[in-house]
Amino acid sequence: MTYGVGILLEGGLVFASDSRTNAGVDQVSTFRKMTVWERPGERVLVMLTAGNLSLSQGVIHLLDNGMGERLHAAATMVEAARVVGEAVREVEMRDGEALRRHHTDFNLSLIFGGQIAGERPRLFNIYAAGNFIEASPETPYFQIGEIKYGKPILDRVITQGSSVAQATKCALISFDSTIRSNLSVGLPIDLACVERDQLRARRRSVGEDDAYFAGLRRHWSDGLRRVFSEMPDPG
Amino acid sequence: MTYGVGILLEGGLVFASDSRTNAGVDQVSTFRKMTVWERPGERVLVMLTAGNLSLSQGVIHLLDNGMGERLHAAATMVEAARVVGEAVREVEMRDGEALRRHHTDFNLSLIFGGQIAGERPRLFNIYAAGNFIEASPETPYFQIGEIKYGKPILDRVITQGSSVAQATKCALISFDSTIRSNLSVGLPIDLACVERDQLRARRRSVGEDDAYFAGLRRHWSDGLRRVFSEMPDPG
Repeated sequence: MTYGVGILLEGGLVFASDSRTNAGVDQVSTFRKMTVWERPGERVLVMLTAGNLSLSQGVIHLLDNGMGERLHAAATMVEAARVVGEAVREVEMRDGEALRRHHTDFNLSLIFGGQIAGERPRLFNIYAAGNFIEASPETPYFQIGEIKYGKPILDRVITQGSSVAQATKCALISFDSTIRSNLSVGLPIDLACVERDQLRARRRSVGEDDAYFAGLRRHWSDGLRRVFSEMPDPG
Repeated sequence: MTYGVGILLEGGLVFASDSRTNAGVDQVSTFRKMTVWERPGERVLVMLTAGNLSLSQGVIHLLDNGMGERLHAAATMVEAARVVGEAVREVEMRDGEALRRHHTDFNLSLIFGGQIAGERPRLFNIYAAGNFIEASPETPYFQIGEIKYGKPILDRVITQGSSVAQATKCALISFDSTIRSNLSVGLPIDLACVERDQLRARRRSVGEDDAYFAGLRRHWSDGLRRVFSEMPDPG
C-alpha cells in the first residue's frame, strides 16, 4: 500500500510519500514513489504515484525519456499535467489489454504539482484515464493510496495560508496516523518542500532515525492524550 | 454509509452508531442501526448493523420474533453470538440468491456484545457468513462501516483499562472525525453504555443540539490546533 499527499499553499507546495510496496504481507519492499524534475530557476515538478508499481514506473520512464522534452518545454503547469496524462494513456495502450487478460486492473493514480517560472505553484490529481483535476483554495490538498486515516488532521489544520513548514509538520503527523493504523504504509517518508518562486525542491528522507520525526510523534501522541484527558467526561 | 463502534472494557462496554442511510446523495434518511435487548438484572445485549439495510432489518426481525426465545435463553454470550450468526445465515438463505440475480452483494456486518449474568462482558464482530470473532485485551474494540477516519484516535487512547466514561468520550471524538471527513455519516449518534454487572444499558441519542457533544467537538478541535502549533516546525 501507498500513502501520498500533496498540499498547495499560497507560499508553495509540500509533497510527501511513503516508500513501502507490497504484494502480500510476506513480500514487502521499499521503492521510491516520488519523482522530482528540477531546472533550478526555471521549473520544479514533483510527482507522487500510487497503484500498480509497474505502471508507475512505466509512466516515469516515459517522462524521463520519450516525453521528457515535452515535459520540460511545457509553458504552464496545466500543459505539463497534460503531458503526464498522455504518458498514463500511452502506458494504458501498451499494457492495459494484457493486464485485463490477467484480471488485473489498470490501477494508477498520481499527484503532480510544482511551479514554472511566470506562474504560481499549482497542484493536480491525475487519474488512471489520464484526466485530472486541479487543487483550489477550497481543496488545498490531494491524497492518493491509503488516504483515510491521515485525512482528519489535514482537514482540521491545513488552509492555503498555512506556511510550508506548518504544512510539512501536518503532513508528517498525517503519515504518523496512517502508519500506526496500516502496517503496509511504512518509513522512510520522502518529503519535498517547494517555496514559492524559488523554483527548486528541498528534499528530505524521514526514516526511523530522524530525530525531528521521532520527537514530533511523541509530542503529538502526548498532546492528544493530554487534550483528551482535559475534556470533561460525559454526564 | 454507516459508522459503528463497540468497545470492550474491564468495566463494561460502549456502543455507538450513526443513523444515516443513503442510496446516493439525494436519498438520505435516518434509520436506527442499534438494537438493544434488555432483561434488567439478567442480560443486556446490544447489536450494531452496517451494510444493506434490508438485510439488517431482516436479521433484527428474526431475532425479535422467530429466534427471540433462543437469544434470550442463551446461557453465554458466545451462544448468543451463535444465534445471531444463524439469523444472518437464515436471511442469506432467503434473500441471497435473489440479490445475486440483481448483482447485489450480501453486504452485512454486525457488532454484537453485552453481558449475561454470571459471565463477564463480551464483544463480537459477526460477518456476512455468520461466523464471528471475539474482542480481546489486544483488540479491545471493533468498528463497522466507514471505519478508517475514526480509527487513529481509538488506537491512541483506548485500552481495556479505560473507564466507560472515557471510552464514551473517545467514541464521540471518533465519530466527530468521521463525520467531518465523510458527509454520508451523520448525526444523531446512538450511544449505549453498559457498566459491568449492572446488566442494563444507559442509552442516549446525541444530536445537533447536544450541548456536551458540541462542547467536546470545539474543545477537541481547539486542543488539536493548540498541540499542533506548540510543536516545533521542521528545520
